[in-house]
Amino acid sequence: MPIFTPLTDRLGIQHPILSAPMDVIAGARLTAAVSAAGGFGILGGGYGDRAWLEQETAKLADVSDPFGIGFITWSLAKQPQLLDIALEAGPRAIMLSFGDPKPFAPRIKASGTLLICQVQDEAMARQALDAGADILIAQGTEAGGHGASRTIIDIVPAIVDLAAGRVPVAAAGGIGDGRGLAAMMMLGASGVLLGTRFYASVECDGAEEAKQRICAASSGNSVRGIIFDLSRNNVWPAPFTGRCLINDHARRWMGREVELMQNIKAVAAEYAAAKAAGNFDIAAVIAGEAVGLIRDIPPAGEIVDRIVTEAEQILGGRRNSVAA
Amino acid sequence: MPIFTPLTDRLGIQHPILSAPMDVIAGARLTAAVSAAGGFGILGGGYGDRAWLEQETAKLADVSDPFGIGFITWSLAKQPQLLDIALEAGPRAIMLSFGDPKPFAPRIKASGTLLICQVQDEAMARQALDAGADILIAQGTEAGGHGASRTIIDIVPAIVDLAAGRVPVAAAGGIGDGRGLAAMMMLGASGVLLGTRFYASVECDGAEEAKQRICAASSGNSVRGIIFDLSRNNVWPAPFTGRCLINDHARRWMGREVELMQNIKAVAAEYAAAKAAGNFDIAAVIAGEAVGLIRDIPPAGEIVDRIVTEAEQILGGRRNSVAA
Ligand SMILES: Cc1cc2nc3c(=O)[nH]c(=O)nc-3n(C[C@H](O)[C@H](O)[C@H](O)COP(=O)(O)O)c2cc1C
Ligand SMILES: Cc1cc2nc3c(=O)[nH]c(=O)nc-3n(C[C@H](O)[C@H](O)[C@H](O)COP(=O)(O)O)c2cc1C
Repeated sequence: MPIFTPLTDRLGIQHPILSAPMDVIAGARLTAAVSAAGGFGILGGGYGDRAWLEQETAKLADVSDPFGIGFITWSLAKQPQLLDIALEAGPRAIMLSFGDPKPFAPRIKASGTLLICQVQDEAMARQALDAGADILIAQGTEAGGHGASRTIIDIVPAIVDLAAGRVPVAAAGGIGDGRGLAAMMMLGASGVLLGTRFYASVECDGAEEAKQRICAASSGNSVRGIIFDLSRNNVWPAPFTGRCLINDHARRWMGREVELMQNIKAVAAEYAAAKAAGNFDIAAVIAGEAVGLIRDIPPAGEIVDRIVTEAEQILGGRRNSVAA
Repeated sequence: MPIFTPLTDRLGIQHPILSAPMDVIAGARLTAAVSAAGGFGILGGGYGDRAWLEQETAKLADVSDPFGIGFITWSLAKQPQLLDIALEAGPRAIMLSFGDPKPFAPRIKASGTLLICQVQDEAMARQALDAGADILIAQGTEAGGHGASRTIIDIVPAIVDLAAGRVPVAAAGGIGDGRGLAAMMMLGASGVLLGTRFYASVECDGAEEAKQRICAASSGNSVRGIIFDLSRNNVWPAPFTGRCLINDHARRWMGREVELMQNIKAVAAEYAAAKAAGNFDIAAVIAGEAVGLIRDIPPAGEIVDRIVTEAEQILGGRRNSVAA
């Protein structure tokens, strides 16, 4: 009983499940595994490391399933030539998040590649549609990593209404199981993009300790803010903030961001050292509210299977509670 | 095609839609209208005004449809005798929110009345189940009025898993249409509690100007915080904060709460005067993220009908996209 939607149709995939481009931890291994399972893996272009991108796209050369490559738009603007490397790898789609896609859209579309834009409000969605986006991702504040403040139950119907059927809309943020996929479909989404759930997968290139912390975390153990960006000297444009697990470092600085900035040299040195040492009491594990639903580290293909199976059961099972 | 769930079964109602006890604006009129439409109207006991409660329960004397009465638990603790007035009115259920229900549960249950508890995290849900709650409401941060920080896509599955089928769980916060009801059912909820949507109804005893502002507001125009509680000298226990529309007063004080407290006398006087004058540039319109879905002020019964009809269509329609 596959779930067909305008999204699976547009991307030519089997299941309406996309894996998020997560900086350098969503490498070729994760991308290929998700796509091989019938989902749509998206390679993490992240902040744009040319050597990394060349290396990972090379690994994707033999992959015949459709896949995507994602960039942080405002960062890509600093090294626009990275887009050529990405396009040469033959992705079905390029995903752009966090910034105006207009400067890059013509090149992407001219190459016959689909343009996926992740948006956090209506203004960004309009900007993306104007640029020719083929697919929108409506991202809620629950998402791991960078995002904004609107919650998913609010932003998904809002973007679905705005898109008015012109392009498929996928939902991102806080989704970790088949219930979440089914719920998003009820809101009008035609699929989901998952980051945190795929972080805790075998093929994700994240640290084992970070994956374990995601499994151990409960709902409510993540926080959205600017502490970890400040601490790693990574200044993001408004309105974006980052969500990560609450650790000692977050507890220490939450509500004291001004003081942190006044002590930035010492904090940044401490943070960089912790990151290099894999000390996640200080270094951030970037993850979202879906952590409450995550208890294991299976192969990514098994995650796709589980979500699809559960969603199909729920969507089918509902027939019984809507009785004549 | 009615939607039967453990919640409709437990309450003996036709549709899995509850109207929230909204202080003194959810009076007998709204309660009776929602219940007459096959939903479950809940009278707002709010902070506990004895004369108001006697007057409104008297109006409910002739209502034969099941209805409920809701209290703010920590406020009821100051005037526990109000519970007797409520129980004498013969509600099907008493709803308690924001505080430990244990002191009141025995009296409620001994009278044969069901106990509904609204909760914001797992610890509160366990406390409610220990007290003998018959129904849980899992409230997300999207909700109008008081609440906490977890979003609905996170809190609903968490409470559904914790309840493990022992009691029905309804979802509250940010729901304004049939898509929201259908989505919450996918997450495992067996119904929804709506406040903001019923605020903008004919029978709600709120100011016309406030209802109009709810219709005019877009998604993203509400904010959760403590400014309006501070300004009206209404101190709530942690972790609760209040969500209302962003107006001039909110814009003026957001991020400057400490300064507000330092000027509390002047601000409180200004706020009280504005409230008395119905000046909603300063006085708060208490409403949640569902405002983006609200464009009109229909009779409450029509709201129930619309939501049910839309949810049934979506739940039924999904059969087509889950193809063999
Ligand atoms: C570890 C991590 C890193 C991320 N890095 C990026 C990124 O480089 N580019 C991007 O567009 N989104 C990034 N995101 C956000 C995702 O695109 C997506 O919106 C999010 O993961 C969805 O929410 P979820 O984590 O609850 O599934 C990242 C998310 C995580 C968890
Ligand atoms: C105007 C208003 C007043 C409220 N007053 C109360 C109250 O007195 N007692 C209570 O338990 N909840 C109160 N709530 C919260 C509701 O119980 C409920 O959680 C909320 O309305 C659900 O979210 P929604 O507004 O997005 O539908 C109030 C909500 C609103 C909008």
